[in-house]
Amino acid sequence: MLNVAHASLLTAIVTVIALLMYFWTGFRVGGMRSKHGIKAPAVTGNFEFECAYRVQMNTLEQMVMFLPLLWLSNAYFMAWPYLTGALGLVWVVGRIVYAIGYMQDPSKREAGFIISALALLALLITTIWGIANAWIAVSA
Amino acid sequence: MLNVAHASLLTAIVTVIALLMYFWTGFRVGGMRSKHGIKAPAVTGNFEFECAYRVQMNTLEQMVMFLPLLWLSNAYFMAWPYLTGALGLVWVVGRIVYAIGYMQDPSKREAGFIISALALLALLITTIWGIANAWIAVSA
Amino acid sequence: MLNVAHASLLTAIVTVIALLMYFWTGFRVGGMRSKHGIKAPAVTGNFEFECAYRVQMNTLEQMVMFLPLLWLSNAYFMAWPYLTGALGLVWVVGRIVYAIGYMQDPSKREAGFIISALALLALLITTIWGIANAWIAVSA
Repeated sequence: MLNVAHASLLTAIVTVIALLMYFWTGFRVGGMRSKHGIKAPAVTGNFEFECAYRVQMNTLEQMVMFLPLLWLSNAYFMAWPYLTGALGLVWVVGRIVYAIGYMQDPSKREAGFIISALALLALLITTIWGIANAWIAVSA
Repeated sequence: MLNVAHASLLTAIVTVIALLMYFWTGFRVGGMRSKHGIKAPAVTGNFEFECAYRVQMNTLEQMVMFLPLLWLSNAYFMAWPYLTGALGLVWVVGRIVYAIGYMQDPSKREAGFIISALALLALLITTIWGIANAWIAVSA
Repeated sequence: MLNVAHASLLTAIVTVIALLMYFWTGFRVGGMRSKHGIKAPAVTGNFEFECAYRVQMNTLEQMVMFLPLLWLSNAYFMAWPYLTGALGLVWVVGRIVYAIGYMQDPSKREAGFIISALALLALLITTIWGIANAWIAVSA
């Protein structure tokens, strides 16, 4: 079971990387706030600020699906233990591509969005596959 | 301990269902964006779009309480292991009723809100009850 | 391992306290909605309402980093098992100071923000430290 322990550590490391990426999206919102003089509690008034804010919010919206699926897949999908963490890394890369594209032009956000959406879909499939196998094993 | 293993699987399945329901609220926001021509990063400008967006955001706001309570209750509440997953299902049903009501008229969001709020309150009670029992067991 | 079991219970209790604090920030938004007659789906139109809403959203934004780091630290950081829960409590206190300061004047949100940011940074360090030690132990 050495590789299962290692795989869980990989999942934990990917979680930390995802949180740092998410922190970076929030940190840029703070930077845009001072750059464009947007006083709290306002979250509108400048295009570049609004883009940075939407990047953070959209990352947040996806994070709430990503982290549960990542850890359910880690817990239940045993066929290739490292796949869960690898898919998690693809999701993070997709979100970085999304953030950089969005800040250039909101219409350039699609490539990164699709990469991370596919990684999320793959994690959904490994999670459902893993739960189904665990159900069969427990019921046998 | 067969029913505890099954109960955890039920909690995992309910988590996946809740994430799919949440994905659906976000998917509709994307649909409303193209239907009403709301260009990113804007999140205002059309009533129907704003309703869809608020449904997603409010679901997100609650998800962040729901998932931790669901899994704390799963981990610590042992009196009736299946109750945790059952309460989770009630929460998801409440959120669907909320989303459908809100899209008809924001004033119709209350019934679904109350259903899911009661399910959340019940999960808070089972969690606190479970933690208290675990504390007594560990300290004994 | 008695103190590890107790430490996990402390982490669970801190999680419940953090969720109650977060619920309070959302509850106040509802109160401000009726006080200032802000009809859903609007989330703008009154300064005090917008402050309450930003407090809730900023708490949500941080919660998504806080809860994963709290539980990763709980799982992997074994040097002083109670430190994780203690740092979690500091984070909650910082968020309460933040919320109260923000409602007085948005410029008074910094003290609470810094307290909770430092607690979050400390949880990041204990998490990375714990993962590194677990990696060494698994690989040895």
